[in-house]
Amino acid sequence: MSKALLTDFYELTMMQGYYLERHNSQVIFDMFYRTNPFSGGYAIFAGLEDLLNKIVDLSFDESDIKYLESLKKFDMRFLDYLRSYKFEGDIYAVEEGTPVFPGEPLIRIETNLIDAQLIESLLLNTVNFQTLIATKASRMKIATKGNGQIMEFGLRRAQGEDGALSASRASFIGGAKSTSNTLAGKVFNIPVSGTMAHSWIMSYESEVEAFRKFAEIYPDNSIFLIDTYDTLGSGIDAAIIVGKEMKRKGRPIGVRIDSGDLSYLTKAIRKKLDENGLEDAKICVSNDLTEEVILTLVNDQAPIDSWGIGTNLVTGGNQAALNGVYKLAAIETEDGLRPCMKVSNSFEKTTNPGRKQVYRFFDSQHSPLGDLIALESEEIREGEDYVFYHPFSREDQFLMRKEDYSTIEPLLVKKIDKGKRTEKERSLTEIQSFSERYLGELHRSYKRQINPHIYKVSLSERLRELKTELIFETREKEDKMKRH
Amino acid sequence: MSKALLTDFYELTMMQGYYLERHNSQVIFDMFYRTNPFSGGYAIFAGLEDLLNKIVDLSFDESDIKYLESLKKFDMRFLDYLRSYKFEGDIYAVEEGTPVFPGEPLIRIETNLIDAQLIESLLLNTVNFQTLIATKASRMKIATKGNGQIMEFGLRRAQGEDGALSASRASFIGGAKSTSNTLAGKVFNIPVSGTMAHSWIMSYESEVEAFRKFAEIYPDNSIFLIDTYDTLGSGIDAAIIVGKEMKRKGRPIGVRIDSGDLSYLTKAIRKKLDENGLEDAKICVSNDLTEEVILTLVNDQAPIDSWGIGTNLVTGGNQAALNGVYKLAAIETEDGLRPCMKVSNSFEKTTNPGRKQVYRFFDSQHSPLGDLIALESEEIREGEDYVFYHPFSREDQFLMRKEDYSTIEPLLVKKIDKGKRTEKERSLTEIQSFSERYLGELHRSYKRQINPHIYKVSLSERLRELKTELIFETREKEDKMKRH
Repeated sequence: MSKALLTDFYELTMMQGYYLERHNSQVIFDMFYRTNPFSGGYAIFAGLEDLLNKIVDLSFDESDIKYLESLKKFDMRFLDYLRSYKFEGDIYAVEEGTPVFPGEPLIRIETNLIDAQLIESLLLNTVNFQTLIATKASRMKIATKGNGQIMEFGLRRAQGEDGALSASRASFIGGAKSTSNTLAGKVFNIPVSGTMAHSWIMSYESEVEAFRKFAEIYPDNSIFLIDTYDTLGSGIDAAIIVGKEMKRKGRPIGVRIDSGDLSYLTKAIRKKLDENGLEDAKICVSNDLTEEVILTLVNDQAPIDSWGIGTNLVTGGNQAALNGVYKLAAIETEDGLRPCMKVSNSFEKTTNPGRKQVYRFFDSQHSPLGDLIALESEEIREGEDYVFYHPFSREDQFLMRKEDYSTIEPLLVKKIDKGKRTEKERSLTEIQSFSERYLGELHRSYKRQINPHIYKVSLSERLRELKTELIFETREKEDKMKRH
Repeated sequence: MSKALLTDFYELTMMQGYYLERHNSQVIFDMFYRTNPFSGGYAIFAGLEDLLNKIVDLSFDESDIKYLESLKKFDMRFLDYLRSYKFEGDIYAVEEGTPVFPGEPLIRIETNLIDAQLIESLLLNTVNFQTLIATKASRMKIATKGNGQIMEFGLRRAQGEDGALSASRASFIGGAKSTSNTLAGKVFNIPVSGTMAHSWIMSYESEVEAFRKFAEIYPDNSIFLIDTYDTLGSGIDAAIIVGKEMKRKGRPIGVRIDSGDLSYLTKAIRKKLDENGLEDAKICVSNDLTEEVILTLVNDQAPIDSWGIGTNLVTGGNQAALNGVYKLAAIETEDGLRPCMKVSNSFEKTTNPGRKQVYRFFDSQHSPLGDLIALESEEIREGEDYVFYHPFSREDQFLMRKEDYSTIEPLLVKKIDKGKRTEKERSLTEIQSFSERYLGELHRSYKRQINPHIYKVSLSERLRELKTELIFETREKEDKMKRH
């Protein structure tokens, strides 16, 4: 099904306005977000490949047109135009999986007004959510400090079907090793995993019988859920009985705990398993895990081999949305490209004008030092000094000398050219490894769970000048209007 | 597309286990949730009609089977069985839109183990999310105290496509009057609405021009966004200029504010509009509205005619998931139906056994007084006294005398009979009015935003006895096992 109607209704009414007015100039829009999720120091940009696929496939089918017609707000000429609609613009974006920072354009759209308006909601919906979840997954992974793997178990608590499906995709990018969602396994080729439910155990006369039956069918993957009746009593005892039987067949088992004090229980269980010769049995935990709980358990040296995480991974938990926005940066006029900006009453809501590129400065270890937003027309090249200007505060600036950095890379790359993808879709595994390596290179101070260091995203001198000019121009126009 | 693979992977491995073991008894599962969302006094049960449609349509297509085969965990006999799979069970549920309370079964599934296992994740995914959002919408509506209508504007911040689509549906049930999501309009027949974006204004030379062009095309629905440059300056001035022109044509306008101090700004704008003869111009506000912000603005008598609410409505905001669960309550054995329960180490995680019905007691105004969970085999009829037992605390109880109540209604109604729907799908408008009336009848103390009164959900005497018996039985079995 085409996603063309997955758009805010005002996009369609504005589109019709542009169409009927023949006011369909070329424009540039930027997508960026304003603050890091989870009070963190970065975000993992995600959702891109998904989004690009959706955009090149956009079209209105007859049922869409019929529905719009039924609303009695649309002219037949406009509806006819929609019938043959195809996205025809260019899209530049940061590579999916890149650690990114507030205020910098992550996607730049260059197309006509109608195109740009139609894709706004779809773009924000896809990128805001997946970036939120990839970031959450990476934070949880950091919290494990390398102790055990993360399995995403979120389907039942996710926000709808696609809240689940997209979350599985984004969690994998951020570092989850598997998903419980079978459809996500099929669609995105993510490894699927799972253990057993309490109902499995309750459907048998005893835990020993339930575990034994399971081990017969799945000898390679016997992870017994031991908290149905009494974790440290009948649960672990039954697991040990069947575990020893499996051991004799050369098959290691695992146990899963889904309730109770996970630090106390995992330690007691590890001891019991070891005393019974089951040193190779793995311990898996679940039960409303948050990144804070993971951190506490890891600091407490709880012997945990894998983490089954649902709600707080796939919904973002304490923060359920990323505040990404999509803003007009320039419009083609008779006099050429006119940079524009929203000069808001709230200073942080003021946008950056013009056709922009983001340049990332790296040290010799390829660790990011800071990002410079510059106009595309500027030449930013290695071996020069650059002044980094604070995006809001006009006094705040610093000099990045040529000795301070080693390389510069532009972040925005052309991904769609006149409606066609410029390259093959990257696989999810590629994106995951790319992201892992990149985040590994980022200095740990930016990855601190609480009160991280603030990564510098600055403006070039020419961009800052343009912004100042436009603010003065707008204020002048306002004054003139007031005087009339 | 069938939703059959939208299931946790362990459901499929358990299903295969049951299938190969020929261990596929009839079972009863209950869906219920443990605590009210948003620290509130109730929830609005939602997602049901959607869920029932998905369940009756469940099937595995060849690509699903091929995918499962590729995982090398499934026997061909089981995959063949899936090829012709159809849900064949019975489903009882509370009517969609009903105010419901923690601990009471909202859905009761009676079918074989395999059926019951397959639908678990889909059921929880659908009902948990939609119930969360319908509840949030109803709370926001209560917060408006009848001042202005709620428009759901959440698409761009929702958790994926269906996070948006399902949220539009649930928000409507909870009391939103419209959605910005065009696809939700098409699929669910919800009124769509919207205003204009900052980009519309920025694409023109001036706000006056932008508003005028819009009003020409949409004379009946001219809501001008006035905060692009200076809300109380150029923004409102331009709106008044074009508003007066429209007034002469007999068309009222509206203004929308998307930033700043909404209390201060709406009052100042109301004054300016009125002074200029635009008393019939409506004021619409948006910008990260929460129920707390709505309440504050209403208490502050801010003159607001409509609320455009996105993020905090469609994601739940501070709470992003409802903790609904799905638990085995009984299983058919050679000796008949055996009630079962999870006797957890944590007392609140202990479940209620057996085939149960929920009886709601009403006063003569049809205001709910309390709910009694009883065994289906008990006869609960009007004109009798009933002891209401606390679900956890054995000492806590009270007597509902026949003089204390007027009528009793069973809440669980058969919705699917042997895999077929028992009645036509209810329309969303029907569900919305049903819910609104029902919630209206609920005493206001349960609807208080903060620290609401706790609605009584109690156990019948026989259910309490059964529960106690089963706990003793389980503990005894454990002791015996320990002694061996």
